Amino acid sequence: MDEFYVFHNSQDIYYRNPFGAVKCGSKVFIRIEAEGCSEATLVISDINENLVAIPMDFSKGKEFIKGENPSTVKEFCVELNLKEIGIYNYYFILKKNTSYFYYGNNKDKLGGVGELYPSNPKAYQITVYKDFKVPEWYKEGIMYQIFPDSFYRGEPSSGTLFNKKNALIYSNWFDEPIYIRDEKGEVIRWAFYGGNLKGIILKLPYLKSLGVSILYLNPVFESSSVHRYNTGDYLKIDSILGDDDDFKELCKVALDNGIRIILDGVFNHTGDDSIYFNKYLNYDNVGAYQGHESVYFKWYNFNNFPDEYDCWWGIKSLPSVNELEPSYMDFILYSDKSVIKKWMKLGVSGWRLDVADELPDEFIEALNKKIKELKSDGVIIGEIWEDASNKVSYNVKRRYLLGNELDSVMNYPFREGVIDFFTGKIDSFMFRRKMMSLYENYPKESFYSNMNLLGSHDTERIFTILYNYTCNKEVAIGLLKLASLLQMCFPGVPCIYYGDEAALEGGKDPHNRKAFPWGKENLNLLEWYKAITSLRNRFLVFKRGDFQFIDLHEDIICFERKYLDEKVIVLLNRNVTESVDIEFKPCFKGLREIEDILFNNKNFIINDGYIKLSIKLTGNDIKIDKIN
Amino acid sequence: MDEFYVFHNSQDIYYRNPFGAVKCGSKVFIRIEAEGCSEATLVISDINENLVAIPMDFSKGKEFIKGENPSTVKEFCVELNLKEIGIYNYYFILKKNTSYFYYGNNKDKLGGVGELYPSNPKAYQITVYKDFKVPEWYKEGIMYQIFPDSFYRGEPSSGTLFNKKNALIYSNWFDEPIYIRDEKGEVIRWAFYGGNLKGIILKLPYLKSLGVSILYLNPVFESSSVHRYNTGDYLKIDSILGDDDDFKELCKVALDNGIRIILDGVFNHTGDDSIYFNKYLNYDNVGAYQGHESVYFKWYNFNNFPDEYDCWWGIKSLPSVNELEPSYMDFILYSDKSVIKKWMKLGVSGWRLDVADELPDEFIEALNKKIKELKSDGVIIGEIWEDASNKVSYNVKRRYLLGNELDSVMNYPFREGVIDFFTGKIDSFMFRRKMMSLYENYPKESFYSNMNLLGSHDTERIFTILYNYTCNKEVAIGLLKLASLLQMCFPGVPCIYYGDEAALEGGKDPHNRKAFPWGKENLNLLEWYKAITSLRNRFLVFKRGDFQFIDLHEDIICFERKYLDEKVIVLLNRNVTESVDIEFKPCFKGLREIEDILFNNKNFIINDGYIKLSIKLTGNDIKIDKIN
Repeated sequence: MDEFYVFHNSQDIYYRNPFGAVKCGSKVFIRIEAEGCSEATLVISDINENLVAIPMDFSKGKEFIKGENPSTVKEFCVELNLKEIGIYNYYFILKKNTSYFYYGNNKDKLGGVGELYPSNPKAYQITVYKDFKVPEWYKEGIMYQIFPDSFYRGEPSSGTLFNKKNALIYSNWFDEPIYIRDEKGEVIRWAFYGGNLKGIILKLPYLKSLGVSILYLNPVFESSSVHRYNTGDYLKIDSILGDDDDFKELCKVALDNGIRIILDGVFNHTGDDSIYFNKYLNYDNVGAYQGHESVYFKWYNFNNFPDEYDCWWGIKSLPSVNELEPSYMDFILYSDKSVIKKWMKLGVSGWRLDVADELPDEFIEALNKKIKELKSDGVIIGEIWEDASNKVSYNVKRRYLLGNELDSVMNYPFREGVIDFFTGKIDSFMFRRKMMSLYENYPKESFYSNMNLLGSHDTERIFTILYNYTCNKEVAIGLLKLASLLQMCFPGVPCIYYGDEAALEGGKDPHNRKAFPWGKENLNLLEWYKAITSLRNRFLVFKRGDFQFIDLHEDIICFERKYLDEKVIVLLNRNVTESVDIEFKPCFKGLREIEDILFNNKNFIINDGYIKLSIKLTGNDIKIDKIN
Repeated sequence: MDEFYVFHNSQDIYYRNPFGAVKCGSKVFIRIEAEGCSEATLVISDINENLVAIPMDFSKGKEFIKGENPSTVKEFCVELNLKEIGIYNYYFILKKNTSYFYYGNNKDKLGGVGELYPSNPKAYQITVYKDFKVPEWYKEGIMYQIFPDSFYRGEPSSGTLFNKKNALIYSNWFDEPIYIRDEKGEVIRWAFYGGNLKGIILKLPYLKSLGVSILYLNPVFESSSVHRYNTGDYLKIDSILGDDDDFKELCKVALDNGIRIILDGVFNHTGDDSIYFNKYLNYDNVGAYQGHESVYFKWYNFNNFPDEYDCWWGIKSLPSVNELEPSYMDFILYSDKSVIKKWMKLGVSGWRLDVADELPDEFIEALNKKIKELKSDGVIIGEIWEDASNKVSYNVKRRYLLGNELDSVMNYPFREGVIDFFTGKIDSFMFRRKMMSLYENYPKESFYSNMNLLGSHDTERIFTILYNYTCNKEVAIGLLKLASLLQMCFPGVPCIYYGDEAALEGGKDPHNRKAFPWGKENLNLLEWYKAITSLRNRFLVFKRGDFQFIDLHEDIICFERKYLDEKVIVLLNRNVTESVDIEFKPCFKGLREIEDILFNNKNFIINDGYIKLSIKLTGNDIKIDKIN
């Protein structure tokens, strides 16, 4: 294919305006520059995924001469009127002489500058959503995820050792967690630290001192396992954790401290050892496993009763439910004593939806509606591991962020980007591209509500990853400081996985669920976390500020944020051995105040409105003495 | 081989006198009857295992005519003068016409009536021992074995959950025990019920009510495992169990209640995770695994330092010690703070020697000497699974019961006989033969001090065996009542494995180590146990009485006991569906008093000095209403 100049940058408002996702009913202006072309056509998939070809106009665009063999570059433009919500995809067909060429998204499908294709171009995305507001307490909060068994144990029932059938308790709080399996690899028992709700209540002052305003709790309902994703009874707190009163107290005392509670909603499956399925007859009622007479029979799909049934990822202990079965919807949502109602009445402010991919859009929408009905500022967060705006699961394009579904999603792409950057797998430019792609594809409200995490109960711990990479604890702590600073300064809701602030180590499950190292915290890191959460909590710019990346150097992530008269530049150098000299002019004019906080560094010089600096990371180089 | 009449019965004093084992310096008269023989020679192995042939005398014996083709039977006699302790073996060579024949022990080597062999006769045994006395408190006591983790938990340290590194605690006392292994089958963690010394102290009234006067405790010293056979520190009570003070209190309160404590002495090996070996550096000292500088280095045999070392049955976590290494002997026995001294000072009355087979005779003798020095009535019991009088281990004939070694051995052959009888594998005649063989081979003091057990921490539980056999709980309870009655009436020290009296179920390890079913005891069985222990405790005849089997019927074990004017016949019918009519004349004259207790049964008739009875076992047929 002959190379010739064609240019479109979906992330530059000169070429596409407005930037990113748009509210339905918006007009979107699209421009492409093409050398030596006589025609340009925009091909766009409409909401029903029909392709529509729209001829582009060059009569209003500029023309200019370009290249060593000068030739004319024409600008072709079109304005789209996007009336219905959905994901639109577009690319361009260009006519040059008698040939047709395609221009579309780059091969990474990350948006921004695209490329020419002889055929089968990748498409750009425009997300069109119904306007929505994410409650401010959520969007502007700092979240903390607790795996309840492992956080803190308050007042264990003396002498009873919890008395949960078949549960084992780690006699030592600091023991490494294990799975207990039989020869076939099946889990036969569960080991518990015995963390409980009372323990969380006792640690609320700690969480407050850490600047946390949102607690996300992994499941707390009755269950045989330590993770409690195999729900036994949706209406009961697991006995090891406490009871309804403890839970109510937790919600109340937390709220008194400005902290909201978010629960894990596990609605794709129940446990097989549950009131509903009752495989082991541990419950005194007729479960689905007992047959048709069970009121729960219709919740499940038996392919061959009783032992062949649909279950999550083939795991027999997690029989899948038919979420849209009316009796299930009633139970979870609508009945007077529905699950959602019960716990929201007791003080829950939001729900994190486990395996949102597996839940039908209709169920999520109904859940959203019911939650907002019960509490206008209730929130709903989805567990999605990829770009949630264009996620396809089971061959269906999913609706998550179009206005009636999720307020927020777990931002695993952010985690991946941060880790890949700090462990040298990608450079800062690629990090920027990946983040910009989310920024472009997500409704702004969603992007600013992203649950920005560095780890969770489902991943290796961030410190362990960095430590394994650097083989040096000090340096790993230094990198973790940068990563967490990035998290606190980035648009979205930072979420700290319990213990990360204390440099808790932990590889893959179950090691990532180790007990909180009370008394053994890395105090230096903990102080850092308190400082950066305090920074975020004090300045609206981190929560609401505009956001602009600056490409400086492969080792340096740089972005600016601005809100009213708060402006900040965030500069992070991952290079642990060498200083990097850079010189640049900030995009946002008038840096003041906050710069002193972030760049309280002897190498930092302000010079004629430019910032010229030489930054070098060592474990202790990042100082934030002046924060308080 | 031509059959002809030859007869010797080692268990009949007409043929061998005195019965059984003899004190050194004793004379033993031996007689054989042989048809048509001109010469008889006794071949006996002397103490150095040289064979000595002694011509037998027929000049003093009778002659009589026997058989359909009448021929002369001559009696040949010899008197042996057995001066040195040891095991002697003998058989006969008979000359008939010009041929030689052999007569020896039966093929089962159980003693009693022998048989003719063309060659290679089995030998009879005469045990010649140095006279010794087993302390009365032991010989006349009732023992109870406790696996300390599983018995009872008193006052756990609130809030700490014991805090033992890498220990897991069953949250439910009634959970089934498990091993926690990795993919390779290696145990990676230990699960504990958390039973402790305080718990045993709290249950002393219960044990007293059960008639128990001796407590044998499985190991109590610091160790990483639940069984604690991998000793970590011989001088420390395991933290889950308590401390020295608890132990002292246990010994004191027990003794106040007439109960003595016997500890498990595990002297063949230590744990690899110990002060001494210190493989995992869990101890702050230089262990053998750290090399020559360790004062413990000589305790172990390294074939290839550090990872190839002698260990028990190839189990790397149990490195074997050189018991005769002086520094080890000092540590265990002789030094001022020796292991034996420390615990005997704190109140221990005896030791059960773990894997006595593996301990050198010299070590056992030294231990015996030291124990008796420290407490003249201290006892020492050996873990031996076979007839201990002629046990060969590692090709060496072992000395256990010759006067300077063990007071008692775990009577596993008794257990095997009882179980085989009640589960139909052998009849009562074989049971009699097996028991008579022990009676014949053991010094009387040893036989009357046998630790008669129906199960231990190393075997399936008796109730489970009987239940699996009968598939009927009621009938199994009935059989267990008979088996336990047999145990209480038999010569030797009955030992109840904790929970057997409550019908605790449990298959092989670890299930035989399940927690005591407090609150769920089979009360009917428990009452039975209390009644039969009370019976034994009240009448000296069960402890000291002479002992005589009577062959009646394959389903019936019958034996008589007599001490002064206490005489008793014990009759046990294993047939659970049919009555058996029997008629016999007791050997011991003048049955009185006790017969009413054991045979308070409507089918029991006394008639002209004969006992004629029809007994039928059902679960409830054995009544002992009149005991109290």
